[in-house]
Amino acid sequence: MQSIIGFISDFGLEDTWVGVCHAVVYRACPQARVVDLGHQIPPFDIRKGAAMAVAGVHQLPEAIHLVVVDPGVGGGRRDLCIVTRNGTRLVGPDNGVLVPAALRAGGIDQVYAIEPDKIDFREPSPTFHARDVLAPAAAALACGIDPSSLGVPVDQRTLVPGPFELAHLEGGHMVAEVIESDRFGSLRLSISANELRAHGLWAERIEFGFGHLIINVPLARTFADVAEGEPVALVDSSGWLTLSVRMGDAAERYGVEPGAVARVGIPR
Amino acid sequence: MQSIIGFISDFGLEDTWVGVCHAVVYRACPQARVVDLGHQIPPFDIRKGAAMAVAGVHQLPEAIHLVVVDPGVGGGRRDLCIVTRNGTRLVGPDNGVLVPAALRAGGIDQVYAIEPDKIDFREPSPTFHARDVLAPAAAALACGIDPSSLGVPVDQRTLVPGPFELAHLEGGHMVAEVIESDRFGSLRLSISANELRAHGLWAERIEFGFGHLIINVPLARTFADVAEGEPVALVDSSGWLTLSVRMGDAAERYGVEPGAVARVGIPR
Amino acid sequence: MQSIIGFISDFGLEDTWVGVCHAVVYRACPQARVVDLGHQIPPFDIRKGAAMAVAGVHQLPEAIHLVVVDPGVGGGRRDLCIVTRNGTRLVGPDNGVLVPAALRAGGIDQVYAIEPDKIDFREPSPTFHARDVLAPAAAALACGIDPSSLGVPVDQRTLVPGPFELAHLEGGHMVAEVIESDRFGSLRLSISANELRAHGLWAERIEFGFGHLIINVPLARTFADVAEGEPVALVDSSGWLTLSVRMGDAAERYGVEPGAVARVGIPR
Repeated sequence: MQSIIGFISDFGLEDTWVGVCHAVVYRACPQARVVDLGHQIPPFDIRKGAAMAVAGVHQLPEAIHLVVVDPGVGGGRRDLCIVTRNGTRLVGPDNGVLVPAALRAGGIDQVYAIEPDKIDFREPSPTFHARDVLAPAAAALACGIDPSSLGVPVDQRTLVPGPFELAHLEGGHMVAEVIESDRFGSLRLSISANELRAHGLWAERIEFGFGHLIINVPLARTFADVAEGEPVALVDSSGWLTLSVRMGDAAERYGVEPGAVARVGIPR
Repeated sequence: MQSIIGFISDFGLEDTWVGVCHAVVYRACPQARVVDLGHQIPPFDIRKGAAMAVAGVHQLPEAIHLVVVDPGVGGGRRDLCIVTRNGTRLVGPDNGVLVPAALRAGGIDQVYAIEPDKIDFREPSPTFHARDVLAPAAAALACGIDPSSLGVPVDQRTLVPGPFELAHLEGGHMVAEVIESDRFGSLRLSISANELRAHGLWAERIEFGFGHLIINVPLARTFADVAEGEPVALVDSSGWLTLSVRMGDAAERYGVEPGAVARVGIPR
Repeated sequence: MQSIIGFISDFGLEDTWVGVCHAVVYRACPQARVVDLGHQIPPFDIRKGAAMAVAGVHQLPEAIHLVVVDPGVGGGRRDLCIVTRNGTRLVGPDNGVLVPAALRAGGIDQVYAIEPDKIDFREPSPTFHARDVLAPAAAALACGIDPSSLGVPVDQRTLVPGPFELAHLEGGHMVAEVIESDRFGSLRLSISANELRAHGLWAERIEFGFGHLIINVPLARTFADVAEGEPVALVDSSGWLTLSVRMGDAAERYGVEPGAVARVGIPR
C-alpha cells in the first residue's frame, strides 16, 4: 500500500527547500508519494497554514500531513506528530499550525514530541527542521513506522493553541472568522457543513453580517446555481462555508479580508 | 507500462486543489505519474487553457491529458473523454478547452460523456469535478480502463467549439491569432510547422502583419541563429510558429497581445 | 535503488516546459524521481541558477543535478555532464552554470560533452535541449548509464567559467559576493562553513562590510538565537554564510542586493 504525504509550507517555490524535502522523503521511503498542497503561504503565517491544513485533512483524511510554517525553528519548540481520533496523522511544529486540522479530523487522540535521533539519518540543521526532522518523520510514518516510535508522548493540554477558533453559537447566530480568500475571490469561513446542519442553519437562504454589512444569499450546491455576477453561499471543496460571486470576486465586491468576524444566520 | 498524465488547470498553486488531484490519481492508480504542465492559467481562461493543451499534446502525444478550466462546474455541462485519431486521450469539461488540442492531435475520433458512477469512489462534489470525476477518469485510463467504459458515446457535432480557430488561408496569406506570449516574451501564433509547409510559407524570411505594423524576419531554426536583440521567427517547442527577439521580449517590443490577428506570408 | 534527479531551471511554472521534462525522464527511466529544486530563476540568469545549484549539491550530493539556464540554446554551445571528485553528477549547458556547484562538490573530476545520438529517442529540437538532450541524459544516468557513455571527454580547462567567484582572502578579511536574497530576505554570501573555519572566522561575532556600511552581528546556530527584529549571521540550509534578521528582512533593512561585494572578518 502506497502512502501519500500531503505537504504544506511557507517555503515558496523560489528556493530549493520544497524539492529537498521531497528528496529526503523518497530516499527514506521510496514508495511514498509527496503531493504539494501549497507552499505559497506568506512567510511565518501560521493562521493561513492552519487553514490550509484543515482543507487538506478534509479532502485527504487518510494521508499523512506534513505542515511546516515555523518561525521558531531551532528555538526549542517541539516537533510534533499528532494522531487524530479518525486516524489522520499530522507532522509539524508545536506552534498551533496543526491544531485546527486535528480538531476537524476528529479531535486529538495521541501526540508525540519527535526525537530526531529516533528517525534521522544525519544531525539536524538548526535552521531546517523540515528537512532534517519533520520530513524524515513523515517518511517513517509512510513506511509503516508507528507514531509512538517517533518520540515521547505529550500531554495535549500543553500544546500551543491554534491560530483561530472554530465557529461558536451566540444567540441565534454562529460567529465565525473569515479564514482566507481563495484564488477566485471566494471567502471561506470557519464553519463546516456539519456545524451548519447541527445548528439549524442549512436553509434555502443564509445571511452573513460583517459589522453593518448584511449579505443575504442563497445557500446552494454549486456556483452555477446562480446567475453570473450573483452572490452565493456554499460549502466548497475545502469543507468550509464559502461566500462566492459566480464568475466574480466576493472578497473584492464586499471589501472583506481574512480575519474579519462574521455573524452567520437564517435571514428573518 | 507506466502511464503519464499531463495536468493543466487554472487552479494556481496557492490552494490545495492541484495536490489533491495528484493524491486522487495516485490512490486510484498507484503506477500513474502526474506531470504538471501548468496551473497558472488565469481563472476561467478557456482560451489559454486550450492553447496550453495544444502544446501538451504536441510534446506528449502518448500521454493522457487532464485539462481543467471549468467556469461552468456543477452546472450540467458534460465531463468528456476525447480519443483522437492519433490515439491521444483528453479528459476535461465540455466547454471547448479540449477541442484545439484534439484537432492538433489528429482530429476527434471518439467522445464519451463521463458518468461519475462508473469511475468514482465517492459522490462527486458539485464544486470540484476535477477531484471527483475528471482526475479519477484520467487515473482509470492510466490503469488501462478503456475510454468506452467511462461513460456514454457523444456525437462530436454537439461539442462546444474551441475558443480559437486554427489558422486559415486568405489570398496569399495565412490568417492566424496570437495565442499567447510566453515567459520569455515570445509570441505564439496558431500555425503549426506542417501548415507553414503545406501553404508554401517555409522560406528564408517570413512576414507578420498586425494591422499597419509589418515585421519581416528570418525564419530560423533557433534563437541563436540571429544576433542578440534581433527578431526571429521559428517553430518553438510548443509546435506553434513563434515570433521572438533573441534575449529580448517580442511582446513588449511590438506591443502585440494575445488575441491579436496576424497576416503571415512571404515578404515581397 | 531509486535515483533522484534535482531539477533547476529558469522555465517558470507558467508553461509546459518543466512538466514535459518530467515526462521525458519518467518515460526513459520509470524508477527515477524528479524533484523540483526551483524554476523561478529570472530568464537567462546564469548567476542565480549557479547559486541555486550550489545549494542543491550541498543538500543532495548523491543526487543527479539537472540545471538548465540556457540563453545560448541551439547555438552550438556544448551540453555537459560533469562528475565531481565527490561523485556528484551535474547535467547542463556549457555556460558556467554548473561550475560553482562542481567546485563546491569536491571539484571537477571528469567532463563529457553529451552527444544527442547516444541518448536521445528523437531528433533534438534546436530550441529545447532540456527536453531532447539534457533531461534524457539525466534519465540515462538515473538508470545506471555511465557518464562516459553519454558523449566524448572534454578538457575541463576549456569550460566556460562560472558566473561568480567563490570567496578569497584579502588581508585579514574574506572578500565574497552576495549571491542571492531568499524568500525571507536573508542574504547569502559565497562563503561556506568550511571556508569560515579554515580562515579563522568562526567566532562569536562576525563583521560584514558593504562599502561604508559595517554590520557587526553574532554568528549563531539559528535565527532563534537572537531576539525578534535582531540581525544574525549563520550558515543556512544552503550551506552559505547568511546575514539575516529574525522574523525580518535583511535585504530590505540594509539595502543590499545580489552582486554586492562584502568584506567579512572578525570585528576589532
